[in-house]
Amino acid sequence: MAKAKKYRLAQIVERFGGEIIGNPLTAVSQVATLENALPQHVGFLSHAKFRKLLAATRAGAVIVGKADSDVTDLPRIVCDNPYLYFAKVSSLFNPPAVASGGVHPTAVVERGTSIPASASVGAGACIGRGVKLGEGVIIGPGCHLGDAVEIGAASRLHARVTVYAGCRLGERALVHSGAVIGADGFGIVLDGGRWRKIPQIGGVLIGDDVEIGANTCIDRGALDDTVIEDGVKMDNLIQIAHNVRVGAHTAIAGCVGIAGSTRIGKHCMIGGGANIMGHVEIADRVVIHGATVVTKSIREAGTYGGNPAEDSRSWAKHMALLRHLDSLLARLRNIEQRLSTLEKQT
Amino acid sequence: MAKAKKYRLAQIVERFGGEIIGNPLTAVSQVATLENALPQHVGFLSHAKFRKLLAATRAGAVIVGKADSDVTDLPRIVCDNPYLYFAKVSSLFNPPAVASGGVHPTAVVERGTSIPASASVGAGACIGRGVKLGEGVIIGPGCHLGDAVEIGAASRLHARVTVYAGCRLGERALVHSGAVIGADGFGIVLDGGRWRKIPQIGGVLIGDDVEIGANTCIDRGALDDTVIEDGVKMDNLIQIAHNVRVGAHTAIAGCVGIAGSTRIGKHCMIGGGANIMGHVEIADRVVIHGATVVTKSIREAGTYGGNPAEDSRSWAKHMALLRHLDSLLARLRNIEQRLSTLEKQT
Amino acid sequence: MAKAKKYRLAQIVERFGGEIIGNPLTAVSQVATLENALPQHVGFLSHAKFRKLLAATRAGAVIVGKADSDVTDLPRIVCDNPYLYFAKVSSLFNPPAVASGGVHPTAVVERGTSIPASASVGAGACIGRGVKLGEGVIIGPGCHLGDAVEIGAASRLHARVTVYAGCRLGERALVHSGAVIGADGFGIVLDGGRWRKIPQIGGVLIGDDVEIGANTCIDRGALDDTVIEDGVKMDNLIQIAHNVRVGAHTAIAGCVGIAGSTRIGKHCMIGGGANIMGHVEIADRVVIHGATVVTKSIREAGTYGGNPAEDSRSWAKHMALLRHLDSLLARLRNIEQRLSTLEKQT
Repeated sequence: MAKAKKYRLAQIVERFGGEIIGNPLTAVSQVATLENALPQHVGFLSHAKFRKLLAATRAGAVIVGKADSDVTDLPRIVCDNPYLYFAKVSSLFNPPAVASGGVHPTAVVERGTSIPASASVGAGACIGRGVKLGEGVIIGPGCHLGDAVEIGAASRLHARVTVYAGCRLGERALVHSGAVIGADGFGIVLDGGRWRKIPQIGGVLIGDDVEIGANTCIDRGALDDTVIEDGVKMDNLIQIAHNVRVGAHTAIAGCVGIAGSTRIGKHCMIGGGANIMGHVEIADRVVIHGATVVTKSIREAGTYGGNPAEDSRSWAKHMALLRHLDSLLARLRNIEQRLSTLEKQT
Repeated sequence: MAKAKKYRLAQIVERFGGEIIGNPLTAVSQVATLENALPQHVGFLSHAKFRKLLAATRAGAVIVGKADSDVTDLPRIVCDNPYLYFAKVSSLFNPPAVASGGVHPTAVVERGTSIPASASVGAGACIGRGVKLGEGVIIGPGCHLGDAVEIGAASRLHARVTVYAGCRLGERALVHSGAVIGADGFGIVLDGGRWRKIPQIGGVLIGDDVEIGANTCIDRGALDDTVIEDGVKMDNLIQIAHNVRVGAHTAIAGCVGIAGSTRIGKHCMIGGGANIMGHVEIADRVVIHGATVVTKSIREAGTYGGNPAEDSRSWAKHMALLRHLDSLLARLRNIEQRLSTLEKQT
Repeated sequence: MAKAKKYRLAQIVERFGGEIIGNPLTAVSQVATLENALPQHVGFLSHAKFRKLLAATRAGAVIVGKADSDVTDLPRIVCDNPYLYFAKVSSLFNPPAVASGGVHPTAVVERGTSIPASASVGAGACIGRGVKLGEGVIIGPGCHLGDAVEIGAASRLHARVTVYAGCRLGERALVHSGAVIGADGFGIVLDGGRWRKIPQIGGVLIGDDVEIGANTCIDRGALDDTVIEDGVKMDNLIQIAHNVRVGAHTAIAGCVGIAGSTRIGKHCMIGGGANIMGHVEIADRVVIHGATVVTKSIREAGTYGGNPAEDSRSWAKHMALLRHLDSLLARLRNIEQRLSTLEKQT
């Protein structure tokens, strides 16, 4: 990755707060794990179980929580949430790419587009008619933007992203390679034993600060739009079907499938490989474990798991019962024997 | 989407049947949901639960079933199956794209191809040697067609589709971005603790009227072909392994995986996220619920679900038993107490 | 596929061992299934259940195991492992593609790259700054290689593969279309109710002889690298999250998801659709059934299945108990009745 600039610990706490113990002039230029850090790196201790790594680390400095302020002699920044602090420091050392500006000579740009001088369009990209790109947008090589697509300022599409006609992304979007935004929803109806396609004429509307993982698919709506609200973060290989709405600041891990017309609340967390059926509603602040199968609406905030999904307390009880089915069977056998003995006696 | 032409209700029933109540000269130019319709739109009522939306809709006309012929004063078309009727009207207003004809100057076309003047090849597309395209085919920008690929008339490949060498698609295919047709099947064999690749020399043979979703993968056969029969509709992110055969008019929802050499019958419906193991056979007219795990052949038409899959009646009974495991445990405890009491008495 | 050269059975056993029964001058030029073989083909019998196909096959010769040396009159090669032998013969008839050498005029190559004359770069491919390609590498059309990517000798990337900046692949890699190597891991942290992105500055390090299926994603590490060791074979639509390590000679079937920081041992086999949670460790020589959900570390070699995963013996017992829940309920009812009778008597 790009070479980062050096910062003294004093400069870092000036930006992000926290307290320095040790030499405030210690300079670091990158973040690293405690195992692999070099003297120019700052490490971090996010969990007590990693304390033992501090003894051997070669890091020039570390970020620690208040409970760990004395567990090392290294120059250190003491703060409330070392993992969040590390994330901020890493963003300082590794800022997002900035558009160099300009359209690569091999890109194909149809007429009627609005591409500001601050935006970059990569080699071989295709930009349809009437496309609007915001300031500082980066369109990677080999991307395809259909007609009338709109991409908000400071967004970045990595190589080989497809955005179908009419779809709109907000500002600061980050879209990874192979993602497909706006393909037809899976709308078919039986017509005498054969499937007839229902034209998918809705679009996809994506808010600000959304991240979309590699090879993730977000289908266009059948009539109205599929909507991804602000701040949603999506991992790779996710399927978002037509007319789904994902609420703001919800995070979705890899390989999740969300079927048509389902509505996910705000501030939810959906674990990897979960399957959410169509036409269900999920409340705000719902946490869904990985590999869960959600078949019905979830009306209350909380944690859910299982197949079919249930709240985590029921799920845990249920799992415990299942794990003890054999002891249950043994108890049954024992009862049957005792009962036979009693029956002979009476 | 493209601006649609206006049609009077009288013109619509002339094409598709049904009965008009209200002014037959009412003109509409697009379909819409009842919530978001404007006066130039025709809405539809596909289920009684949406009746309440009729009071507030701004639609110029609606499509309703016979049981709902009197639930609104709006000009309306009364028909047997409003959802199917709506699909037909939507197809009238939103016909498939027609090839403009011509090869984009940035496309790369190898020698020996057959590209009719009515076919379009998009920017940056690569067409291998000996490729045959039918009349009116649209190859999207950035597609790659390997040598000797054949694509039937009136088919459309959206941007960035890959078809490996030798694979054949029928007429009126619709393939979405990122789909990969004909990559190597996963054929490996252990050779002294290491995996040796088995060359995958079969192809992929796809019938007419097939739709393939975004980022879906259909692998080429190991020796014989992988076969997708006529009228099959596939959603996004589906994996079809080598030597699978999918029967005609079967619909497969997103994120389904079908392992090698499995045969799916005709007129089946496979729900999202289902997993079908290798070397199994599934009869015609089988419906598989979402997230089902099929481990064995299914010999009879019907509805199946669960992990492992069972027929829907057994599955429902099974699920009910599981949900009442705790009451079962309570009954066991009660029995044990009563038994102890009895044992003390005798 | 490409026309294969003819080989006499005598030439084949000279290379791969085994014993000929019948005319050693019999010449064959391709492998085929017994059902579809023609006289110029060699078939193989990998399992006794296919013996009946021998009577009708038109194959010019067959490969059989020692137990089957007399089940046909066709010229035949008798060997220890007919399936492995067939794989070797197929590789002889269908060798991997050889780079023709040269950069297509429509490819875009940034400065500072090292592309040997023996390597090929396809139409519309983009090669970033400082990329290093080994001898005989084939980069397919529409591929994108970020800055400083390294690809080892004799590797092949099919069309439309993305390798992000700084990722390294070993020798003889085979990567299928749509695969994305090195997209950002899913690293986010809550910052006052909103997700803050954690820059992903690790890379992806891939060993020799690795195959990567279509649309499979391997994310770059957060700080250290994601690592795929030598000889790993991966099918389509697999998700490998950041900082996963997959041990040498492990095979992973389609649609598997492996969450962050998980370590998979060497010589493992992971069935299709399996989900492996984050931060778990899986020992060497572990076999995981398809659709298994692994929630905890697996410390011992063996076979595992279920949701959550358990060793195959417990799993089988568990499944049997579940399947007999209704008989268990019937026994419970019977006990209750007998108990009531007894209680009335005493």
